[in-house]
Amino acid sequence: MQAPNPAKLSINSATVREQWSLPQLIEGCVRAGIRGIAPWREQLKACGTAEAARLIREAGLTVSGLCRGGFFTGGTGQERQAALDENRRAVDEAAAIGAGCLVLVVGGLPKDSKDLAGARAQVRDGIGSLLEYARATRVPLAIEPLHPMYAADRACVNTLGQANDLCDELGPGAGVMVDVYHVWWDPHLEREILRAGRRILGFHLCDWLVPTRDILFDRGMMGDGVIDIPRIRVWVERAGYAGMYEVEIISAARWWKTDPDEVLRICRQRLVEAC
Amino acid sequence: MQAPNPAKLSINSATVREQWSLPQLIEGCVRAGIRGIAPWREQLKACGTAEAARLIREAGLTVSGLCRGGFFTGGTGQERQAALDENRRAVDEAAAIGAGCLVLVVGGLPKDSKDLAGARAQVRDGIGSLLEYARATRVPLAIEPLHPMYAADRACVNTLGQANDLCDELGPGAGVMVDVYHVWWDPHLEREILRAGRRILGFHLCDWLVPTRDILFDRGMMGDGVIDIPRIRVWVERAGYAGMYEVEIISAARWWKTDPDEVLRICRQRLVEAC
Repeated sequence: MQAPNPAKLSINSATVREQWSLPQLIEGCVRAGIRGIAPWREQLKACGTAEAARLIREAGLTVSGLCRGGFFTGGTGQERQAALDENRRAVDEAAAIGAGCLVLVVGGLPKDSKDLAGARAQVRDGIGSLLEYARATRVPLAIEPLHPMYAADRACVNTLGQANDLCDELGPGAGVMVDVYHVWWDPHLEREILRAGRRILGFHLCDWLVPTRDILFDRGMMGDGVIDIPRIRVWVERAGYAGMYEVEIISAARWWKTDPDEVLRICRQRLVEAC
Repeated sequence: MQAPNPAKLSINSATVREQWSLPQLIEGCVRAGIRGIAPWREQLKACGTAEAARLIREAGLTVSGLCRGGFFTGGTGQERQAALDENRRAVDEAAAIGAGCLVLVVGGLPKDSKDLAGARAQVRDGIGSLLEYARATRVPLAIEPLHPMYAADRACVNTLGQANDLCDELGPGAGVMVDVYHVWWDPHLEREILRAGRRILGFHLCDWLVPTRDILFDRGMMGDGVIDIPRIRVWVERAGYAGMYEVEIISAARWWKTDPDEVLRICRQRLVEAC
């Protein structure tokens, strides 16, 4: 099996979010010879979208995705409309920085609701409403299934199968984000990756640590956990994916406390050695 | 919708494991008018199986299940054989106390392994090897799918669909345990519960808290979280389940620090009001 091409490495800004602003990340990637980047909207806002677009362009970086739109669910029509408006702004930002896709973390249960099926219907309707605008703006929407442990408060799309079903229903302009952290446990993963095929808009890398000490902030560097990343990568490539390998490690105790140049160096090394 | 019959309440010993020994739990259930119990093997061992069987019989309690067998995976044949031997002892204990089933937490990845498919094959083989003995001893084996967040270190059977597939393959003597905590997020839950039908050997209750502060020890009392328990209960009953409602709350910060008589009182109240 051939190792991944490090020229396709992209760094998600969440990986060094406590150490670096977006301009610092851009400079850091250039120093490290890394050619891809994926900002979160918070960093984009702090920098200014136009300024960020200029810096990214001048650095010659590819933007593998913008994190994140979504959170379509809400207890009232007003809340859901506000979410939709916010998502249109996110689409605009993704277009402004030339992002390969807008990543959608779709939202969980509305406040005080236990209606999971209803939340899932809201998500379908929300993405459906956003799609026309996204198509017109030429920004592909990447539905990211999140690990089932986030079903209540972050995303009620929890398997790649669900995301594929949504794509089938919604049509062109909707695709999927495959993040090994969220999907590695799924007994139908290979089948659903092949089913996703060219709809795979991005591929997120990190690792599942044992033990996992925090449900949100304890993701691992590739190779430090239990995910068989090379196996999943091969499936994703067999499905036709030829985009970037985006490293997104949310790690309060370890990687957010490490010198960020060192983090980037290790990301690059591990992409080749452990993915 | 009719509320659950409190005469079918069973208390899993994990719910008050820091406060009470098994004899104390038996006495506590009698005081509270609760007629079902489900010990863990640790408590059984501390009490002595014969003595526990006597106390349970004299108290007139029904044993909804024994927790737990399983952990079939291992890096060597020797480890797996040792696990099988241990599981036979668990079957004997379940028989000795007249448990309705032996609950199987099947095991995760062997040490230093990332081969999830291989671990799942080991689980199938392990349960298959145990089944003959369990059938002869007349102890049904309840395969419990655990939440995907436990795939690495506790159970690589993570959906009810997988457990049903295993039952199909293994034949009589194998059934499933439905624990709302582990399965509530599953988009195929209703379908798989109906598919399980009479193979449902037990029904575990607790709740999913938002936020969940600990991946292991932060389960909630029914009604305090986001799971639509009545909806799942109706599905389970529609599938033909007529057994006990077993409350298993693993809660270091809250319920393990509450007066256990009070815990039992609230379990009973919430069974009627929130399930």
